[in-house]
Amino acid sequence: MTEMLSAAALAQAIRAGRLTPLDVAERCLEAIRTREGDVQAFTALDADALLTQARAPGLAARPLAGLPVGVKDIIDTVDFPTGRGSPIYTGYRPVADAAIVRMAVRAGGLIAGKMSTTEFAFMQPSPTRNPRRLSHTPGGSSAGSAAAVAAGMLPITLGTQTGGSIIRPASFCGVTGYKPSFKLLPVLGLKPFAWSLDTLGLFGAHVADVAFAAAAISGRDLIPADDGHVPHFALVSTARAHLAAPDAHAALEAAARAAQKAGARVSVLDLPAEVEAADAACGPVQAFEAALAFADEWDRHHGELSDTLASYLASAQHVTPDEYDAARRASRRARHALADAAAGFDAILTFSATGEAPAGHATTGSPVFNRLWTLTGAPCVNVAGLTGASGLPIGVQVVGRFGRDRATLGAARFLERAIHDGH
Amino acid sequence: MTEMLSAAALAQAIRAGRLTPLDVAERCLEAIRTREGDVQAFTALDADALLTQARAPGLAARPLAGLPVGVKDIIDTVDFPTGRGSPIYTGYRPVADAAIVRMAVRAGGLIAGKMSTTEFAFMQPSPTRNPRRLSHTPGGSSAGSAAAVAAGMLPITLGTQTGGSIIRPASFCGVTGYKPSFKLLPVLGLKPFAWSLDTLGLFGAHVADVAFAAAAISGRDLIPADDGHVPHFALVSTARAHLAAPDAHAALEAAARAAQKAGARVSVLDLPAEVEAADAACGPVQAFEAALAFADEWDRHHGELSDTLASYLASAQHVTPDEYDAARRASRRARHALADAAAGFDAILTFSATGEAPAGHATTGSPVFNRLWTLTGAPCVNVAGLTGASGLPIGVQVVGRFGRDRATLGAARFLERAIHDGH
Repeated sequence: MTEMLSAAALAQAIRAGRLTPLDVAERCLEAIRTREGDVQAFTALDADALLTQARAPGLAARPLAGLPVGVKDIIDTVDFPTGRGSPIYTGYRPVADAAIVRMAVRAGGLIAGKMSTTEFAFMQPSPTRNPRRLSHTPGGSSAGSAAAVAAGMLPITLGTQTGGSIIRPASFCGVTGYKPSFKLLPVLGLKPFAWSLDTLGLFGAHVADVAFAAAAISGRDLIPADDGHVPHFALVSTARAHLAAPDAHAALEAAARAAQKAGARVSVLDLPAEVEAADAACGPVQAFEAALAFADEWDRHHGELSDTLASYLASAQHVTPDEYDAARRASRRARHALADAAAGFDAILTFSATGEAPAGHATTGSPVFNRLWTLTGAPCVNVAGLTGASGLPIGVQVVGRFGRDRATLGAARFLERAIHDGH
Repeated sequence: MTEMLSAAALAQAIRAGRLTPLDVAERCLEAIRTREGDVQAFTALDADALLTQARAPGLAARPLAGLPVGVKDIIDTVDFPTGRGSPIYTGYRPVADAAIVRMAVRAGGLIAGKMSTTEFAFMQPSPTRNPRRLSHTPGGSSAGSAAAVAAGMLPITLGTQTGGSIIRPASFCGVTGYKPSFKLLPVLGLKPFAWSLDTLGLFGAHVADVAFAAAAISGRDLIPADDGHVPHFALVSTARAHLAAPDAHAALEAAARAAQKAGARVSVLDLPAEVEAADAACGPVQAFEAALAFADEWDRHHGELSDTLASYLASAQHVTPDEYDAARRASRRARHALADAAAGFDAILTFSATGEAPAGHATTGSPVFNRLWTLTGAPCVNVAGLTGASGLPIGVQVVGRFGRDRATLGAARFLERAIHDGH
């Protein structure tokens, strides 16, 4: 196992003159040479271009300090093919970079390459394998983005979540995944799946790393203060708790105990009925929008869709505008009810996934503990550090209040330290 | 002056067997031959392809009945170049149709061609001239879409509004423009300008025509009932009333009188302070998002931007995330305050534009009476039928409640008839 690369620590070392961006790029390429053959996280990589970029003057002074960044392959890039995980777009070269790619470059990031995704960020797996155990799925859809960080090949990667595509692979691969508040990072230049749900986010080794990278890229104050604030967590198991494996329950309990041991209050919170009900609203919202988002591919490239996606879209066509509107109203009610119910807490502590990464590569696992939080638009962080019955990672999820990303990252960092110290 | 083509009437004639889709296509092409040399509404047109499509069997039974549709050139089309009004994208061929294009085709519409837009739907004028008087601007940014309907060249065109780009050209050209509730029509495959504001809409000859086309394309029940409902209008002049020319005031008063004469109640409504204040929030919201939406063009194609857009984007870079967030909060407050203030009314009646279309083609006019309603996401309809001091059209605007598009179209249709009957 290669050690993970901490973006915040690397940037600090670059600024202090202990490392150069070229050193970091070379370290990444060394890890890629060692691990990529097994892991298969990249769909495109240009080592020479990365080394050339890393020699540019002045990078150390810029927000991302010349760190390499991996970009999920449903995000448009001019300099790399953007295959979107689909044969329809093999070799596709967009005419413009996605806004987030330009933001990363403007912040002094170096675009290292493209990271594998399931087909259009849906369920048909990519070739990527879990760096923690190659026989297991890394999760999806941001498979390559999570795996590259877990394998120590890159310090920062960009991913997206429509159901559970950031938090789940982060949990399976034992890395930090951060799904910001809805629309905090602009989705312009991403292949849409469902515009009410598609959310851009980040992977890094630790909470400090995703906070650092998100702040650097967005220009927002997202790095939690070191003010000793001790959070009050709402422990939420949801109406779907029975779908979590025993070791996922054990991980959540261990996280809660660690938080308490570190001084935090942890109170059990039963979600209001309106919030639980919204879980059922995810389906019609996603399906109705996907049927329109893939109208062109459905009409023109039907034979090149996987059976998984084609059959999903076939049933998605039957969701009526009335059903969609009702689901949207249910999600609006859930957002308000959640804001009320969680008002007294700093963050919710809940499952990231149903358990360890499933064995094999036929499935990327279930988003059952993610989609509700995507629908509400709340910021979510997968906190790593715990393991399951077979020794694979099991993350726990910190869900914050909409728009309170800095506080959410602060609560996640508190929990991360508590878990680390408790071991 | 060529007579405008009523989409609803043409569809009815096709369904009744009095016309075929081929007859309609030929009528459009005849008007195009007569008028397009002067008006210059199209950026791309394929007459042969249109005639071929019009011969397809079964069109009469489909929702759009085989009617030709014009598509604003910031909307992606596979079969036509998508130039976005910018030399950067001259000859650009997207790999996929925008969702709305597929929706129109699925509904039995025939994509006739692409309609001129100002540069990226901002302020740099297109070559299009006002069909009502060629020496005058048609307005912008949906210049070609409004002009083609006014000139009787097409029965239905698609346009977009980020500030006032549907309602203003509709007012200047004397056609019906309909800006639906935000997100009613999906913007996937449009070049974004500001994602919180960009709204897709329609132009047609009369209110019944845009209602017919929007219902056919979206599959939603948007055609107002003929139940004799007499609306209660809130007459709103806004804090910017002094920017309206005397003949715009006269038109608004005439519309109010006509509505009253037709039996409607018209009550003066002063907008709450929170709503008026949101007008100032449009600037930072649009600028912050535009700076990101054009990140690629700014970084890679700076020399190919117009001075107008380049200087706008230069200052847009300085809007901070905090200023943006504050503007977004102000617009959220405005949305709620407007919902409360307008709760007792069927619709607001207000200015569509500052007056007649300005002379010349150096400017496309001011969005000062549009941007607040775009920000609130409310459905808006330009109702034609009145004229200004020099005899050019002056429209009036019906603004409905968010999500109540059918009722808004109903109020607009009532007003349209009242204006017509009052003459």
